[in-house]
Amino acid sequence: MIETPYLLFLGDAPDQLAAKVAQGIKDWRPENAVGQIRLAGCEADVGLTDMTLEEARAAGAKTLVIGVANRGGVISPAWKEVLIAALEMGYDLASGLHNLLRDEGDLVAASQTFGGTLHDVRVPSVGYPIANGVKRSGKRVLAVGTDCSVGKMYTALALDEAMRRKGMKSTFRATGQTGILITGHGVPLDAVIADFMAGSIEYLTPDNDDEHWDIIEGQGSLFHVSYSGVTMALIHGGQPDALILSHEPNRPHMRGLPGYALPALETLRDTVLPLARVANPACQVVGISVNTQKMGEDEAQGYLAEVEARMGLPAVDPFRQGADRLAEVLASL
Amino acid sequence: MIETPYLLFLGDAPDQLAAKVAQGIKDWRPENAVGQIRLAGCEADVGLTDMTLEEARAAGAKTLVIGVANRGGVISPAWKEVLIAALEMGYDLASGLHNLLRDEGDLVAASQTFGGTLHDVRVPSVGYPIANGVKRSGKRVLAVGTDCSVGKMYTALALDEAMRRKGMKSTFRATGQTGILITGHGVPLDAVIADFMAGSIEYLTPDNDDEHWDIIEGQGSLFHVSYSGVTMALIHGGQPDALILSHEPNRPHMRGLPGYALPALETLRDTVLPLARVANPACQVVGISVNTQKMGEDEAQGYLAEVEARMGLPAVDPFRQGADRLAEVLASL
Repeated sequence: MIETPYLLFLGDAPDQLAAKVAQGIKDWRPENAVGQIRLAGCEADVGLTDMTLEEARAAGAKTLVIGVANRGGVISPAWKEVLIAALEMGYDLASGLHNLLRDEGDLVAASQTFGGTLHDVRVPSVGYPIANGVKRSGKRVLAVGTDCSVGKMYTALALDEAMRRKGMKSTFRATGQTGILITGHGVPLDAVIADFMAGSIEYLTPDNDDEHWDIIEGQGSLFHVSYSGVTMALIHGGQPDALILSHEPNRPHMRGLPGYALPALETLRDTVLPLARVANPACQVVGISVNTQKMGEDEAQGYLAEVEARMGLPAVDPFRQGADRLAEVLASL
Repeated sequence: MIETPYLLFLGDAPDQLAAKVAQGIKDWRPENAVGQIRLAGCEADVGLTDMTLEEARAAGAKTLVIGVANRGGVISPAWKEVLIAALEMGYDLASGLHNLLRDEGDLVAASQTFGGTLHDVRVPSVGYPIANGVKRSGKRVLAVGTDCSVGKMYTALALDEAMRRKGMKSTFRATGQTGILITGHGVPLDAVIADFMAGSIEYLTPDNDDEHWDIIEGQGSLFHVSYSGVTMALIHGGQPDALILSHEPNRPHMRGLPGYALPALETLRDTVLPLARVANPACQVVGISVNTQKMGEDEAQGYLAEVEARMGLPAVDPFRQGADRLAEVLASL
């Protein structure tokens, strides 16, 4: 659990894309951030008030979150200066970088001296159990993709927002470092030891009120040979009541795998549903989310209408349209 | 890579079952062991010559392998005495215990003083790559189970033996600690970090001669919600050309999961084959191995004949009958 609110560290981001973690926090949990702090040369701006460490601390900030990718695989001296000053002022630090904060001697020393916590969200901080498969109360929905990086996290966050707006009880359950930094908690599933993957998802989505929905962030794809095991563990550990199929058209091949074609949505549906029903016989495929970012508005609308007719399920682009129609389906279950 | 030949340490095993790792080495790789060493009160005997550390060393033993489960989760003082004496004499140590040798200060000190290696085969010793899905030369066969612990390792070892007897080129590829100790190398898949599972299997089964078969030890089951992710990674990382379905009849429910019924062999076949064909479109289901240990001879023969007729595939119990009929099918591919 990372203490909120945050001050978002944008560092010397060379462009807006480098600050996508900070942007995600600003977009999805603006109440979690009091402001942003930038170094000389920073080309990113997530639209929050620029603050010094002191100002943000006075505004209540508890954790300095590294909301930017680093360059060259090192944490630079310019970054270190800010990070150490933050620890001296009583901040915790949180990071999803491959370079772990805990591997930096000066940060460890400062955290010990001043009592701040170093959160490296890329690695697990708890010992997860082995999954026991026992049916849990409450409801769960999971987005499964034809490929990796087709918009599963975005779909889940948009769905959470739409459900809250409708007055439904829902919780976004992060399974990757960006989602964990956005919400302050979660399981970094890709870094969990094989035997404990499904158990970590049971741990993440415990018993809940009957009408409460856990919206579980998807990872990988059953059709992506590098990561399909991670996806499988999510499907069985998550015991989803509802599945949303996520897709990005226009891809020449599976991400990073030339020669591997994307499956049709029908193939994904017919593959994932029997597997999901092993853990939850009542599981249904309830909708489709499509990432149409490479299409114009008319083309996107046409594509979504075609998919909706073909699959007999609501098909939306949550970025263009929001996820209200998906939330409506879940409300009816 | 663990150096052979071994001296097998049976400790103070309370019964024969406790020494099943040593028995596995004796049964499947007798050429890897020069003898056994037992402490007072040992109730196990794998049928090798009893030797002192000195005698085995003189007979060429390079590694003392802990071939027995320990009691109470500790490595006892009586064991330590032998293990440290072995290190002093120039042995390496190898263990698949949950308690790691590397966590025992006195063993670490002795290994540093005398230069011996401590092999904890339960944890990975290399950094595996992320799977790239590139088609590899050579052939691969994988046993997939309706459940965990239905005899997949036994099937693979028996198949390897049958294929070698026929003069075929084959290599048993261990993916669990017992298999690793039997053969001296492999991947402890259940302890690999999620993102690298499939990559570890690609690493384990590299390019090979066109007519060479890797016989990959299976793990878990697609239908076992605790471990299905591990199985999925084996199916995609292994790129099997051939699958063998493994089953144990008479189980009331999935291992450790009351309320979860075992799937029918037909369900397993229809689930696993499309998934395997994502990584290898030429993959086929070629046979069935059944663990009939709870059946009498007539009942077992009847069951196997029924399964064979129903599935249209050779069905054997490798323990009762050997795996020659499965090897014949592979020879024809």
